[in-house]
Amino acid sequence: MSATDRLEELGLTLPQVPTPAAAYQPFATVGEFAFTAGQLPVVDGALPRTGKLGSDLSTDEGARLARTAALNVLAVAAAAFDGLDAVRVVKVTVFVASDPTFTEQHLVANGASELLGDVLGDQGVHARSAVGVASLPKDAPVEVEAVLVRAEPT
Amino acid sequence: MSATDRLEELGLTLPQVPTPAAAYQPFATVGEFAFTAGQLPVVDGALPRTGKLGSDLSTDEGARLARTAALNVLAVAAAAFDGLDAVRVVKVTVFVASDPTFTEQHLVANGASELLGDVLGDQGVHARSAVGVASLPKDAPVEVEAVLVRAEPT
Amino acid sequence: MSATDRLEELGLTLPQVPTPAAAYQPFATVGEFAFTAGQLPVVDGALPRTGKLGSDLSTDEGARLARTAALNVLAVAAAAFDGLDAVRVVKVTVFVASDPTFTEQHLVANGASELLGDVLGDQGVHARSAVGVASLPKDAPVEVEAVLVRAEPT
Repeated sequence: MSATDRLEELGLTLPQVPTPAAAYQPFATVGEFAFTAGQLPVVDGALPRTGKLGSDLSTDEGARLARTAALNVLAVAAAAFDGLDAVRVVKVTVFVASDPTFTEQHLVANGASELLGDVLGDQGVHARSAVGVASLPKDAPVEVEAVLVRAEPT
Repeated sequence: MSATDRLEELGLTLPQVPTPAAAYQPFATVGEFAFTAGQLPVVDGALPRTGKLGSDLSTDEGARLARTAALNVLAVAAAAFDGLDAVRVVKVTVFVASDPTFTEQHLVANGASELLGDVLGDQGVHARSAVGVASLPKDAPVEVEAVLVRAEPT
Repeated sequence: MSATDRLEELGLTLPQVPTPAAAYQPFATVGEFAFTAGQLPVVDGALPRTGKLGSDLSTDEGARLARTAALNVLAVAAAAFDGLDAVRVVKVTVFVASDPTFTEQHLVANGASELLGDVLGDQGVHARSAVGVASLPKDAPVEVEAVLVRAEPT
């Protein structure tokens, strides 16, 4: 099954590529690689939730927002590689806005990792870092960036 | 106009490559890629300002320091690629030392992004992540790292 | 002397590749590159220490944990490249869980950088970023990730 088919089966639609918040591009390609900008969990141009894990949001809420940010990563990936079928995800970094007492960044980040696997299958399986940061642009709870490569279409 | 010419037109001079604060190198190259070490906004070997955004420095002050750190990234890039004219910036990560209430990391990071665009033109346009961290080495307000590639000279 | 010999001379043994804490892989390779997942200073599946630099642990204790995390990076590297002798480290990022007052992340990170140099020699010399984060998964004090490339065996 193609990534596009899986996306449809999951009832998901790729969003528009989010407009960068500032003076940069959503992605840059070099050879087979594409590097994405950090994606916030923006929906239709706005953040559905703001605040920090450990004080304002639960781990489950954070994971859902990480999933949303990862869907934005997929939109960027599709723009970089003319559709999802040639997208392979190599590395993902998940920055989680965290109260200093919060230590479940890996569970929040699973929301991103699982979406990428669900949509891209084997090509979505990646190495990952998840860290808790002091705060994020626009008070976003999560930010997800990825290193991608062009794969043979499945 | 070459990057070197634009640098001169902007009234800027490349600093010396800052000496790493510790047991590592300012950059490592592999094939066409160069990965820079995180650069602090050091001027003549010292930090002109220390502290955090949201408590000790304004967004504008932070952006100016991000610009200074990006100038150090350019110095490293020039060392990696024998001058600026073959430098293309692919990905930039800006770490902003932030009070937890500060949420304008993207505006601080613009200081770095805009300098790279001003000096390198199209070759300076990059994907970017900006995040707020708890603190940085030597109490630096910002740290900027980049993934670079060797481009055809313009 | 080979990396394997140096490891033995240092009295070190590569640990098992730590099981990812969540839905991802310890590494992903693409061409000559391997990207590692962020490695915590896990020993035999558990964290010997938790907490933050600047409040719960000294800089020296943090550096020892960064060394432990870097040994896990080497275990991952050996799995990616069928042994250590073809491993070259290009870029290392060290995330240090930090009280906002802590500003010696570069000294903590030296524990990782020095181990990589001690074991891999010239092939272990890398570019590096060190930043202080609000908190890390499982309350780990440090997390270390690396970009690696396949080198000619020495």
